[in-house]
Amino acid sequence: MAFLREEKVFKDPVHSYIYVQDELIWNLINSSEFQRLRRIRQLGTTFLTFHGAEHSRFSHSLGVYEITRRIISQFERNHYPDWPKEERMVALCAALLHDIGHAPFSHSIEEIFETDHEQWTINILLGDTEINRILSSNSSSLPRQVAEVIQKTYSKSIVVSLISSQLDADRMDYLLRDAYFTGTDYGNFDLERILRVLRPHDGTIVVKESGMHAIEHYLMSRYQMYWQVYFHPVTRSSEIILRQIFKRAKQLHEQGYSFTWVDPSILALIEGRITLQSYLSLDESLVQYAFSCWQHEQDALLAELCQRFLNRRLYKYITFEELSEEYLTEIEEAFTAIGLHPEFHMEIDYPFDRPYDVYRSEKTSSSREKAPIMLLEKDGSLSEIATKSDIVSSISGLHQGRYHLYYPEEALIRHRHLLSDTIKQIFNIHDEEQRTNG
Amino acid sequence: MAFLREEKVFKDPVHSYIYVQDELIWNLINSSEFQRLRRIRQLGTTFLTFHGAEHSRFSHSLGVYEITRRIISQFERNHYPDWPKEERMVALCAALLHDIGHAPFSHSIEEIFETDHEQWTINILLGDTEINRILSSNSSSLPRQVAEVIQKTYSKSIVVSLISSQLDADRMDYLLRDAYFTGTDYGNFDLERILRVLRPHDGTIVVKESGMHAIEHYLMSRYQMYWQVYFHPVTRSSEIILRQIFKRAKQLHEQGYSFTWVDPSILALIEGRITLQSYLSLDESLVQYAFSCWQHEQDALLAELCQRFLNRRLYKYITFEELSEEYLTEIEEAFTAIGLHPEFHMEIDYPFDRPYDVYRSEKTSSSREKAPIMLLEKDGSLSEIATKSDIVSSISGLHQGRYHLYYPEEALIRHRHLLSDTIKQIFNIHDEEQRTNG
Amino acid sequence: MAFLREEKVFKDPVHSYIYVQDELIWNLINSSEFQRLRRIRQLGTTFLTFHGAEHSRFSHSLGVYEITRRIISQFERNHYPDWPKEERMVALCAALLHDIGHAPFSHSIEEIFETDHEQWTINILLGDTEINRILSSNSSSLPRQVAEVIQKTYSKSIVVSLISSQLDADRMDYLLRDAYFTGTDYGNFDLERILRVLRPHDGTIVVKESGMHAIEHYLMSRYQMYWQVYFHPVTRSSEIILRQIFKRAKQLHEQGYSFTWVDPSILALIEGRITLQSYLSLDESLVQYAFSCWQHEQDALLAELCQRFLNRRLYKYITFEELSEEYLTEIEEAFTAIGLHPEFHMEIDYPFDRPYDVYRSEKTSSSREKAPIMLLEKDGSLSEIATKSDIVSSISGLHQGRYHLYYPEEALIRHRHLLSDTIKQIFNIHDEEQRTNG
Amino acid sequence: MAFLREEKVFKDPVHSYIYVQDELIWNLINSSEFQRLRRIRQLGTTFLTFHGAEHSRFSHSLGVYEITRRIISQFERNHYPDWPKEERMVALCAALLHDIGHAPFSHSIEEIFETDHEQWTINILLGDTEINRILSSNSSSLPRQVAEVIQKTYSKSIVVSLISSQLDADRMDYLLRDAYFTGTDYGNFDLERILRVLRPHDGTIVVKESGMHAIEHYLMSRYQMYWQVYFHPVTRSSEIILRQIFKRAKQLHEQGYSFTWVDPSILALIEGRITLQSYLSLDESLVQYAFSCWQHEQDALLAELCQRFLNRRLYKYITFEELSEEYLTEIEEAFTAIGLHPEFHMEIDYPFDRPYDVYRSEKTSSSREKAPIMLLEKDGSLSEIATKSDIVSSISGLHQGRYHLYYPEEALIRHRHLLSDTIKQIFNIHDEEQRTNG
Repeated sequence: MAFLREEKVFKDPVHSYIYVQDELIWNLINSSEFQRLRRIRQLGTTFLTFHGAEHSRFSHSLGVYEITRRIISQFERNHYPDWPKEERMVALCAALLHDIGHAPFSHSIEEIFETDHEQWTINILLGDTEINRILSSNSSSLPRQVAEVIQKTYSKSIVVSLISSQLDADRMDYLLRDAYFTGTDYGNFDLERILRVLRPHDGTIVVKESGMHAIEHYLMSRYQMYWQVYFHPVTRSSEIILRQIFKRAKQLHEQGYSFTWVDPSILALIEGRITLQSYLSLDESLVQYAFSCWQHEQDALLAELCQRFLNRRLYKYITFEELSEEYLTEIEEAFTAIGLHPEFHMEIDYPFDRPYDVYRSEKTSSSREKAPIMLLEKDGSLSEIATKSDIVSSISGLHQGRYHLYYPEEALIRHRHLLSDTIKQIFNIHDEEQRTNG
Repeated sequence: MAFLREEKVFKDPVHSYIYVQDELIWNLINSSEFQRLRRIRQLGTTFLTFHGAEHSRFSHSLGVYEITRRIISQFERNHYPDWPKEERMVALCAALLHDIGHAPFSHSIEEIFETDHEQWTINILLGDTEINRILSSNSSSLPRQVAEVIQKTYSKSIVVSLISSQLDADRMDYLLRDAYFTGTDYGNFDLERILRVLRPHDGTIVVKESGMHAIEHYLMSRYQMYWQVYFHPVTRSSEIILRQIFKRAKQLHEQGYSFTWVDPSILALIEGRITLQSYLSLDESLVQYAFSCWQHEQDALLAELCQRFLNRRLYKYITFEELSEEYLTEIEEAFTAIGLHPEFHMEIDYPFDRPYDVYRSEKTSSSREKAPIMLLEKDGSLSEIATKSDIVSSISGLHQGRYHLYYPEEALIRHRHLLSDTIKQIFNIHDEEQRTNG
Repeated sequence: MAFLREEKVFKDPVHSYIYVQDELIWNLINSSEFQRLRRIRQLGTTFLTFHGAEHSRFSHSLGVYEITRRIISQFERNHYPDWPKEERMVALCAALLHDIGHAPFSHSIEEIFETDHEQWTINILLGDTEINRILSSNSSSLPRQVAEVIQKTYSKSIVVSLISSQLDADRMDYLLRDAYFTGTDYGNFDLERILRVLRPHDGTIVVKESGMHAIEHYLMSRYQMYWQVYFHPVTRSSEIILRQIFKRAKQLHEQGYSFTWVDPSILALIEGRITLQSYLSLDESLVQYAFSCWQHEQDALLAELCQRFLNRRLYKYITFEELSEEYLTEIEEAFTAIGLHPEFHMEIDYPFDRPYDVYRSEKTSSSREKAPIMLLEKDGSLSEIATKSDIVSSISGLHQGRYHLYYPEEALIRHRHLLSDTIKQIFNIHDEEQRTNG
Repeated sequence: MAFLREEKVFKDPVHSYIYVQDELIWNLINSSEFQRLRRIRQLGTTFLTFHGAEHSRFSHSLGVYEITRRIISQFERNHYPDWPKEERMVALCAALLHDIGHAPFSHSIEEIFETDHEQWTINILLGDTEINRILSSNSSSLPRQVAEVIQKTYSKSIVVSLISSQLDADRMDYLLRDAYFTGTDYGNFDLERILRVLRPHDGTIVVKESGMHAIEHYLMSRYQMYWQVYFHPVTRSSEIILRQIFKRAKQLHEQGYSFTWVDPSILALIEGRITLQSYLSLDESLVQYAFSCWQHEQDALLAELCQRFLNRRLYKYITFEELSEEYLTEIEEAFTAIGLHPEFHMEIDYPFDRPYDVYRSEKTSSSREKAPIMLLEKDGSLSEIATKSDIVSSISGLHQGRYHLYYPEEALIRHRHLLSDTIKQIFNIHDEEQRTNG
């Protein structure tokens, strides 16, 4: 494997610098598939809630690579016997490329069009791409090895746990990066300290016991980021509108509607016959350009939804502990009565519909979840962190969420004279004040 | 003027929070013309050099508004007689809207298509737009007043100096914001301290003498941001390619070339007959989508340039103190001989071609430049800062730049056997190493 | 009340700047009693654990004043009716002077010599001091008013809650300041945000509902500071030695021992007859100078303890869940057998001996504790924060500590051949490794 | 050489953590001579100007050690041939111990009592001390080797340049640390980046050419720290008073005055016969305790000066471009006429009396100064940084200071009726306002 004659550096606001020492990594970064990540935001629609969150998956991917590089470099420097040195390049490539298959606004796209970004990552690694050629030029087995790490089937499980575990490089980078760009300080934790206390141990990565406080801080930060950024209802509202746009476009196409303009890749996506080449042309420019065009479409519903998204005219929401079928029916009828389409103009978030990713201890975690964080004691034994830390124990329990119902408030206010008192009370429409993103 | 029933807040990574107290401001932010700024990056192509620089003019505009709001709030709180209290809303609107007329990648667009973002700002303020309606609903003269501030002809000169001077809210926000998102710490300075030492004084804004150190620090930061971010040659290289794309598209259209795809607004721009409505549909999604399409155009030159831009295959550069006509001719001939188009494949930056915006003291500044920063002494007299500060005096002199010649290195390497020894020596093509963005 | 002709500023690493606008405050800061606080560390012996914690009560007192000033300034600016404007100066003075009665290493001094720093604060406010003269010159009732705020008996309870409550200026400053100087980032929270959401309400200070997240972050930070800084066992060990020194000196004096050197104020302290004048001469210089002298005293025990303190040769500790009387007796006998004095050479910390100051919700708090933090809902009702916040609810429960036994490890190792197997096992003296301050 | 069984860590606010891997270093830190540095402030009297500057030489010494450790670790990791690996321990010990010989308020003590902290460092290294025993136990030649590094006579010049050069670990730590504790952000620079671009080269340490910007930033920060912190006139005023105290005490003792109290070490210092043992008992506790006692001495001048120092009643100052002998005589006579002692009550700072430590380029530096910073070009040649960097070139010139005359303002105001108009005009005594520390 060739080293670069001179180390390359990228200035990075989160890690200060990102260091590239291998020609292979340098070439992967310069591939068109990787450069495409510059045109996909890391946090999807979150920029509509936190305006600073305009950062891309490109910078996140560099960050995951850099954290992985630092961990490995520390393992190598200390000659830890449980770290398989020959796996360095597989790990670095997997770290850099783990998000390469993402579509623009992935979660919404995947839900409506039933694609799977992980599968597309595999396709890009193994298909006819620049990335495949660069990896293969290094060793013919490398594309397959990297794909196995992504699929979590790689024989050296420690490589998988670097990229995907409760304390992996992916999560450490996105917590720090999302905190930095949204401007929410509580997402900060002491990365340098954590990197120093990680230890390769019997096919997995554990934490030296003296590092417990640093891990506590990391878990507290993660806890707050989930509640205050990732689960923010305004973000959720914009995701709902985005999904409704795709849903409506699909519905229209299936009904034989003829769009004034539509990009062939979007058509292929709708029809479920998209090729690798077309998939790689999907980015947020294309999606936003499509919405720009569609806001003038003849279909009023599609036009309205696109205008809402582009001009940030989001749905409001109300919350409640329980929601009876009866009430729901009454609401749907009221919506229909004033000309709204319940299918598109309201949405209910049930608690736990979304992946809930706060740390769970052994006791509270289900089998599907990632293995808990283990502390390595001085005597060589392992303990799950929640058994040692009061702080972690106190935050790793289950939390009950609330139902959120999203809807277009302006329409209800405009047609208030047509609404029953029950409906007016539910939606509190006497109060015309708008919510902000604070 | 109506106050909001409850203050709105935006979380901002640079100013911590942005506070909106006026319904007028809230409505302006929610207008479609202002939301469009989310789709235009603050630093154009700089994200290709500093990958964190993905922030938009939307967040910058909020920042300029917030700094202006804080300055005015301090002036009001202290009841300074030289501050005309009735100008608050004009100033806040001008701060928020000062960049509303920007096109995507403004500098390049303006150079090739001879548009002027300041004129478009006026058009948006005075034309048939949501913004005009919102401003007018407040007072019929407000659109015109805000326009005059932008044009620097407003009768209350102190309002102009808030938005446009050596120490204005615009510059203070962009220095801090660009430093934050690029990750270059040296752009930091103590904004809070500066805000406390500003004083309205006889139609302009001056600095209390005890604030000299804070201003020194601000000017040092600005000095470093110019040399290390704004004048970065890699950014310059990407701007050159961008401009060449527009130049080529225009040339092709004028030659009667028929594009596979072209957006009507771009066509209107090329033909110099763009309407306000079309201008407002221009954003970076549209431009990037256009480049995505054009990278498959039949015209090889246009396709090549678009691929270069999207995949960050930029021109390299060499620098020299002087460049004779003779040499230049030799280079152009050599380029032509190996199939390159000198008109598109090389560009020379002469020193001072670009707006050089390091602080100049009275002595060194030319008449076109903004008035220097004045210190208000305890006895009420004013002194220009460079006469008081050794630091400012030492950095406000003239600096000689160097010529930069940008060119496609790969092509030269590929055709090295066709190049003369002189040419090979000039471009140092024995060394195949690529430059990074460090 | 006189305003300063020009505002004074102190550069402060935590609050950026501290602003003094009143001549009264400026004069109080310049009094000899206030300058004495420069010679008393904020965190006592903590600098032996976290070497950065060398900051004084002087800077903390300025910080509490500044936070109070900012809160009041916000209350005044918004003309909140529940804030009694005439109380501004009483509140600022109480904030600045709340710690004026502290002795060097207060907690240890108070325990051994049965003094009370709050009572000394009152004595200084009302006695023959510069501070009393400065306050009286402003209004004859001011010293008494400030004293009542300190004693929590002041009729305007809102002034008391500014200085002493679950969310007071004292605590907000020390958390931020101690985090800054120890270098433990997890103590950070968003002060600016909290200040903006505080509201005077019916004789107390509450939090606007939209500020809940900021309070959560504050309580999380506080939680971590307690576990990781304030309860750190190495700090506890140094406090124990300090107290043993005072205890031994007192014991010796009572036994008629004649010291080679002793400062008259210390003698007065031991004999319980210290005057205000003498008390004000107590500072850490004096205490450390005394220890410097006493490390050469003839009494071997006093000399040993002083050497331990000055050269940081602290006791080690072991922890256990329970400790039987039997075991304890066996340990004491073993200690005596090898020439140690159990009274001075060992100490057991029982859980909850120390003021445990993690936030308690209404349900878990005892009557002695400060009132919980209340959120002000949009409809004007109040709710205790733990009923609204999952995070706070999860950390406000009770936590069981462990017993810590502190002892001189070197002595045990030196005499290991004289120890029984049980004792050797308890103290794990095979492992000679020393603990660090990490 | 023995490694510790487990790495020790110190939490440090500047470097995050300080890592100790060698038993030798650990033992040196625990020696009584090194622990004494906890009782000597890093910046002497600066805490009277910037109240946060209460940090000790203990924390600075750990910081210099840590930076040196990181540099060496990088050199070792990269196997640079110009770094002599066997010198690691000599370099680390010299870094840790370079300030071990400092007295409290060194500069003043040295001036009045003609001691030399560097000579005392040598005495401590080679004399009968714990430190000497610890070093010798490692290798009999180590104390002498470390002493030679301190004296800059060590044969391996690269070790000297690590500890003492224009870009040494000492200076890098104190700039960052003093900036942190004073709270002046402009002292920050990117240490991590600088450490990565240092290269051992032919017996000295140079900077890789691509690191030029980081060095520029470092030099700008240093420039600002000198002007805004180290040369601050309020600090200078407190140093003057401190020196006058020592001067007066010495004068009194020489005149046969009998002090009510005086510590034997101070007496030995005055009489120029201090032993190593006594020297090591000197710390700031002792000095401040002495001042506490002396403020009640019968000699009114000594008492006044001590009260001034303890209660921060400093001299004010006036500045002027030139000062004639005539004027000076007139001032001295006026001072005497109102009962002041010109010898103690006034002091003139001539420009450049103090070590002026802003970076000088080759052209402007004198022979006594440290060698300039050299850049290592890609072709292996060296260039002085000011020849490459416009920024450095602009700030490395000479700067003219101004005369400062320090004096007790209150006395002049009190006796204003006795002063001539000239004197009143010079001292501007109509303006009674006091200066602050801003």
